[in-house]
Amino acid sequence: MLRLYDSLLSGNCWKARILLSQLGVKYERITLDLVRGDHLQPDFVKLSRFSRVPTLVMDDGRPIVESGAILMHLADGTHLLPDDKYARTEVFSWLFFEQADLQKAIAVPRVYNIRGLASQMADEIALRQKDGYGALDKLESWIKTRDWLVGSSYTIADLGVFAYVSVAAEGGYQMERYPAILRWLDSVRSTKGWVPLIVENSLSR
Amino acid sequence: MLRLYDSLLSGNCWKARILLSQLGVKYERITLDLVRGDHLQPDFVKLSRFSRVPTLVMDDGRPIVESGAILMHLADGTHLLPDDKYARTEVFSWLFFEQADLQKAIAVPRVYNIRGLASQMADEIALRQKDGYGALDKLESWIKTRDWLVGSSYTIADLGVFAYVSVAAEGGYQMERYPAILRWLDSVRSTKGWVPLIVENSLSR
Repeated sequence: MLRLYDSLLSGNCWKARILLSQLGVKYERITLDLVRGDHLQPDFVKLSRFSRVPTLVMDDGRPIVESGAILMHLADGTHLLPDDKYARTEVFSWLFFEQADLQKAIAVPRVYNIRGLASQMADEIALRQKDGYGALDKLESWIKTRDWLVGSSYTIADLGVFAYVSVAAEGGYQMERYPAILRWLDSVRSTKGWVPLIVENSLSR
Repeated sequence: MLRLYDSLLSGNCWKARILLSQLGVKYERITLDLVRGDHLQPDFVKLSRFSRVPTLVMDDGRPIVESGAILMHLADGTHLLPDDKYARTEVFSWLFFEQADLQKAIAVPRVYNIRGLASQMADEIALRQKDGYGALDKLESWIKTRDWLVGSSYTIADLGVFAYVSVAAEGGYQMERYPAILRWLDSVRSTKGWVPLIVENSLSR
């Protein structure tokens, strides 16, 4: 059985959980408490390059790290990643855009807010938000005339970009500026098998 | 013929030029002056999502954006991207790591240095370098015991991570801290068909 090492609030881990649910794949979920330092335990350090979540461990014990790589690996051969080479390349392009332009810009201010460090880290938050608003403006301009990021149906491009954008308000972003993004986020939430960020963690240990 | 829209100093564009050279693919190169605003010309805006370089235009006129997606598209089916699914996933994982953790952390301080804005932007540079040193430490720990990032030969994982890391000193990074990275950078520079960042631009217009 697949094993997913995740953490409770990470958007990158959430992507993997949504996809596993949408593909109907059974897996064991092991949720690490990063504040407590679970990810620094020797067994996990040995397993996961750079001790990061999400880490997906395959049946044969080999690990996959980086959320984008996990999505691509799991979705390959399914309806959530097109077979056509150019369409695949477009999907990958969005996954790179999200990691380069959106992920840290949203995740870092969000973590500071959640940990009550917003005033202390105000300068850094402002800088990250400058990055993030630039990327959200781009996303809004793209999705305004479209239902999905690539082609005419939901793919892992949508899923990959969705996770952090959907929690951007927790990072202090004024999301009411982005009506097309809000509509598209709702569309992603309506896809079959989608799961919310916080769910009962029946298989964690 | 393939057409590559690039800019002179961009590490992301350089990746595409190295790969095209290493694959022996002929292409037309159109170098944009971003300071002059060439990328805001209507024709390019229409072609390139978000008006960015590199943009690779295929024979049939369809564009590919995001350097990672360009590398994957071009290298597919060649010796620079393994056929084995797990090895491919590992390559993609490194391309994501570079875009998420290294690219902006090096590119932004580098641009400020090149434009003489280092003192004015000192706070932002310090913050980006905090990101970048964290990622370089991780890279050093990985490559210390290896010749290449994935498996036993050069792949687009090495190429994708190489470009910005090799110009990190221009972003103010103290690269003498990283002897294993420096050795690996030299290995990449020794691969067949590798081209330096600045080359005569015979096909540009």
